[in-house]
Parts: sequence; C-alpha cells; structure tokens
Amino acid sequence: MAVEFGLRGTFACETRISSIIDEQLAYAGYTIEELVDHQISFEETIYLLWYLKLPSVSELKVLTDDLKAHMEISDVIEAALRIQCRENLHPMSVLRSTISLLGVFDRDAEKTDPEATYLQAINIQAKMPTIIAAFSRLRRGLDPIPPRQDLSFAGNFIYMLEGKEPTKVQEESLNEGLVLHADHELNASTFAARSCASTLSDMYSCITTGIATLKGSLHGGANERVFEMLRAIDACGDTETYLQEKLDSKEKVMGFGHRVYQTVDPRQKYLKKKARELTVGTEDEKWYHLSIEVEHFMREKKGIIPNVDFYSATVYHSLGIESDLFTLIFAMSRTAGWVAHVFEQKSENTLIRPRSKYVGPMNLKFVPLELRENVSAIQEG
Amino acid sequence: MAVEFGLRGTFACETRISSIIDEQLAYAGYTIEELVDHQISFEETIYLLWYLKLPSVSELKVLTDDLKAHMEISDVIEAALRIQCRENLHPMSVLRSTISLLGVFDRDAEKTDPEATYLQAINIQAKMPTIIAAFSRLRRGLDPIPPRQDLSFAGNFIYMLEGKEPTKVQEESLNEGLVLHADHELNASTFAARSCASTLSDMYSCITTGIATLKGSLHGGANERVFEMLRAIDACGDTETYLQEKLDSKEKVMGFGHRVYQTVDPRQKYLKKKARELTVGTEDEKWYHLSIEVEHFMREKKGIIPNVDFYSATVYHSLGIESDLFTLIFAMSRTAGWVAHVFEQKSENTLIRPRSKYVGPMNLKFVPLELRENVSAIQEG
Repeated sequence: MAVEFGLRGTFACETRISSIIDEQLAYAGYTIEELVDHQISFEETIYLLWYLKLPSVSELKVLTDDLKAHMEISDVIEAALRIQCRENLHPMSVLRSTISLLGVFDRDAEKTDPEATYLQAINIQAKMPTIIAAFSRLRRGLDPIPPRQDLSFAGNFIYMLEGKEPTKVQEESLNEGLVLHADHELNASTFAARSCASTLSDMYSCITTGIATLKGSLHGGANERVFEMLRAIDACGDTETYLQEKLDSKEKVMGFGHRVYQTVDPRQKYLKKKARELTVGTEDEKWYHLSIEVEHFMREKKGIIPNVDFYSATVYHSLGIESDLFTLIFAMSRTAGWVAHVFEQKSENTLIRPRSKYVGPMNLKFVPLELRENVSAIQEG
Repeated sequence: MAVEFGLRGTFACETRISSIIDEQLAYAGYTIEELVDHQISFEETIYLLWYLKLPSVSELKVLTDDLKAHMEISDVIEAALRIQCRENLHPMSVLRSTISLLGVFDRDAEKTDPEATYLQAINIQAKMPTIIAAFSRLRRGLDPIPPRQDLSFAGNFIYMLEGKEPTKVQEESLNEGLVLHADHELNASTFAARSCASTLSDMYSCITTGIATLKGSLHGGANERVFEMLRAIDACGDTETYLQEKLDSKEKVMGFGHRVYQTVDPRQKYLKKKARELTVGTEDEKWYHLSIEVEHFMREKKGIIPNVDFYSATVYHSLGIESDLFTLIFAMSRTAGWVAHVFEQKSENTLIRPRSKYVGPMNLKFVPLELRENVSAIQEG
C-alpha cells in the first residue's frame, strides 16, 4: 500500500459543513459569494456552520443572546492574561494557554450532553474576542475594556480594542473577514481538532489543538508575515527589486498560492475590495496600492494568485489591529468551523488513527550500555 | 475516491521511530521484548526514539545531564499550578495548560535550529514529572518536593510524590511502564502532534496537542477508568456478575481490545508481571487477583485480550499514584514519542491536509433573515 504523504489525495471523512468543489468554497451548501453578497453576519455564519441551516429570527436571537451572556472573562482569566503580558511573549501561545485555562476552570467541561457541549462552544466563541482585545490592551499598559451587549460580534471586537464605536465600513470589513475565514473544509487545524475530538476529548482540548496547529507558518501564521513583507517592501522603496530578489533566492513570498486552489482563492476578491474601501483617502492607502503591485508582479512572473491572507493583512492593519494579532483574528473566526467539525466528528465518531510505514532497520540486537561505543560507530559508518 | 473513515487503512507517513508488524512492537528496530528484557532505562529509550540508535555512555550522560538541568519549575509555573489546584479540576486539562504556559514563558520557543528544538524538547520532558508531582501534592494541601539530581527519571518521580526514595521494584516498575508507553507508531495523539508539527508550529504547541488528544476516553483516558472499574468490581463483590451485566448492557469493559492488536498486546505481559511483584504480600494484592479474574472472564466470554492500560492500572496504583493521574503518567512517557515524531515530521515536512467528501446539499439560495421561518420548516420537513 502506498504512503499518502500529507494525506494530499485522501478523503479522511464525510462532511456537511463546507466544501471546496471546482475552486468554489461553500458553507453547508451556500457558496461564499451567495453569503457575502447578501452580507451575512458572522453570528449567522456561526449558526449556519453549527446547525447546517440559516437561522430564523428567533434561532439567531437565542444564539446571539447566549454569546452575549458569555462574553465577559473571569478575574482568574484576566489575571492569567496579565501575567502573560509582562514580557514580549508570542500572542498565539498566549491564546493557546488562555483557551486551555478557560477549560480548566469550566466545571462543565467534561459534560458530553448536547446542551453542555453547545455551552462549551459558546463560552469559547464568545470569550475569544474579549481575550484577544484584553491581551492587546494589557501589553500596551492599558486596562481591558469590557464588552458591549448592544454591538455585533465584529463591532464589539473593534470597540474593545480602543473604546471607540466602529464606523460602518470598519464593522462590515471585520465581519466579512470573520465570515470568510470561518471554515475551510479539512484544513490542517480543523483536521487536527477533529483528530482530537475523535478520541472523545473535550471541546476545550479540541479548540486548543486547533489554535496550536493554526499557529504554524504554513497555516495561520502566514497572514502576520504578509504585513511584515509589505512593510519591508515599503522600506525598500522598490517593489520589483524586492520581490525579484526573493524569487531569485527561492524565498517564499507570503500570501500567495494554496494547497487546494490553483487558479483563484474565492475569498480574496472580497477582502481586496474591503482593503480599498477602508484605506481610500487615509494614510493606509499606500498598503492597498503596494498590495496591488505585489499581486500584479506575482501573477506576471510566477502565474500565482493571492490567497485569503494577502488582502486580509491590509484590512486588519487598517482596523488598528497589530500585525502579530492577525492570526488570533483568524482563530477567533475559525473557532466557528472548528466547533462545527468537533460536533460532526463526535456525532458519528470513528477514532482517527492511521498507520505509518516503517522504513528503518529491523530485529536489531540489544547491546549493553558499556559496550556501545563501537556499535554507534558502526551504525554511523 | 472512497472515504477512509478514521484513516483505518491509510499509511499517513513513513517512519523510522517505531513499528507494529505482526503484532510485534519495536522502537527503531529493537523489539519491545529485546528492550525490556535487557532492562533499558527510560532515559535510554528517550535517546533511542529521538536519535534512532542506542546511546553510548557519553551520549547518555549528555542527555541525562540536560534533563537534570531542566527539571526545576519556575515560580510562575508553580504559581499557575497553585491557582489550578484550588478546586477539583481535571488533571489532564491542568497538564495541557501548564505545558502550554511553559511554552509562553520559553523565550526560545520560536527558534527552529536543531539545538533550540532539542532544548525545547528537553525542557518539556524534564519538567513534566515535576509538574505532575507538584500538582499531586498541591491539591492534597502539601508543598511540592524539589527534584533530586541523583535519582533516575522514574525514581525521581516517585520520590517527588511523597519524599521517600523508591524501592528497587517500585523504580523498575515505573521505569518499565514509561518504556512501554513511550511510543506506539501513529496513535491518535502522536498523529495529531505530527499534524500540528506539519504546519511548522512550535514544539510546545505540538506537545500541547498531544496532551489534548491523549485526554480522550478512547485513548489515554482509558487507563484511569480501568482502576475505577476494579474498584467497582471490588465493591460489587462478584466479578462475573458485574462483568456479565456490563456485557449484557453492551457497555465497554475498560482496558480490553485495541485498534491495532487482535491477538495480543505485546506490552501487557510485562506490566502484569510487575503488578504481581509490586503487590504480592501487600494490601494491594487483591487488585492483581481481581485483574486476573477479569482477564480470564473476558478471554472466555468474548475472546478479547487485555491491552497495555489494563495492568498498568494496578502497577500505578501500587506506586501510590492517584487513579486520575494515570493518564498524566502516560503523557510523561509518550512525550518521548511525540517529540521524536515532531522531529521526524519537521525533518522531511509535508503539510498534513487531507480532503473531506462533501455529502450535503449544494447551490442553496440565500433567503433574507426576516423571511426564514418558512425555509427552516421546509428544510426540516
């Protein structure tokens, strides 16, 4: 039997949550275009992914009320964040630990009935923006701003960063970013979260696993690097020279290419449009124009296309989010998808436990420790 | 293309770390029998899994010196444990958070050179026994006992629990338990840790993922339940009646059966022997005899065989370890394997990113929120 390196061509499960067919991304049967063109809210998107249908007015109210009832973080979580803000620590590691701690202190974390698992999910989804905004402020020496009940999920997050209500375009832009990142079939972090769920581990363990896996530079870690690159290009002053040097030295240009998409990432056009709307006439407009230059250069020289990370960098920067928090915004959104996949995995569970093909030596004979110098030399020779 | 549910028949990678061939478990080419019969130490086992050869005297000294240099936990980690000991919280959740926090406070956690990743692994492997023992004592209202440099890995752990040096058979028994649990090919937690590593996430993220995944009741969570079952049988007073009722009501009998082994789990015979040696003539001897009764009953009635969890329960209990910490002992041992697999995954990395087969509806049309009551009814009808 052949080894499926990276499981590239393997169907690891069935799903009803999202699909990527002919480079078209859809959530529960609705294409991304259908959803974003109709300005679906992130709250509706959460419902759609968890329940596989669009909510009615009353169903949506239950969900948003539950989210609002769980937004505030406890003193012990805020204290844990204060300790983790003392020094210059990695924000994704802090998020990983803080969500894990949230599980330690949830006395119902081990309950497995549907109502309890729903509330675990709500608790994580609702508190993640509060945790991220509090972390952002604490490390700037500012006190956290409590969440506001009268704002949307996206609007409240922007509010908690600086205490200012967002403009319409700001709120819409973050909402769209959250909707577009909410799920993406069996991406690496979702698959790792499902693997965790398949042992019947608890929701907090699964989401902690998702965050840990998203952190890697081949996954969520990429979009923070896009903005670093834009900054470097701006400092360099010559986009073509900068990129040509990257290509010549075979370095990766961040925000381009995708394992699953070959011709177009269906999500990027929306964030490109929002990047323009947000920055036009502001001092951030240059990042939009720089991005366009990079996109054109890469298309011409390499024939590769920007992915969802590319324009989200300019969008998030324009919203006043520090670039090392971009991956945390990704996590706040993808939590909706992780939770949906954990629900689905547990509802028809088979332990995810592949085999590996052993390619090393066999039937070696043990040599006592004191006689081993020679053996090592022989094995290496 | 068919869906590989649970990836049951899929080779997800090549490996040189361990193999299960013809129900024979081997580490880097040495069968478990070869290693345990020659009384390999857990420290040598760590080296074997990480470097794929047995260490020479000097190589082993470097590893054990590095472990000893990293055993002590910082004040901030001890403070975090004290907070997590205040109430009756889940020990695996506490371990998950504490290892994650260890990563937050390791200023070299993001470094990717071989020396740095080795030291990250050493830091986790060395501190895990200290963390577990400190947690065990703190929640009993006792201060932690600092690690001792002159004891073995296994001996030091037993020492840190009560401040008493272990007997020879106690030290050998724990050492054997650690050796036997150290790796097991692509078990679910190892595979999840490799998935995390494949995004190029850091060592702490990968081990946190391993712990989160091991926590599930279909994986590491099982061995704590074995002892709960033995207690229940003891309270019931009639082994056959108790088990027959379990079978009649189709409940799972813990510690029996395994996805990979059909006729024998090659690890259990060793722990069975240690369970006898440890308990003979003590008040714990009844647990050994009860275990034998359960094994015979299950073999006769169902033709299924005990797995590694089954006798490890009696062994760990006899060592004075509380049953809800059994899975943490498993984690302390399996960390050696997780680390080895993270090293191997990163050395020849391909992103682990399978596909899922979409089986839901397609091309659904968006309906505005205010018109949705009917749609929900139709979709559900």
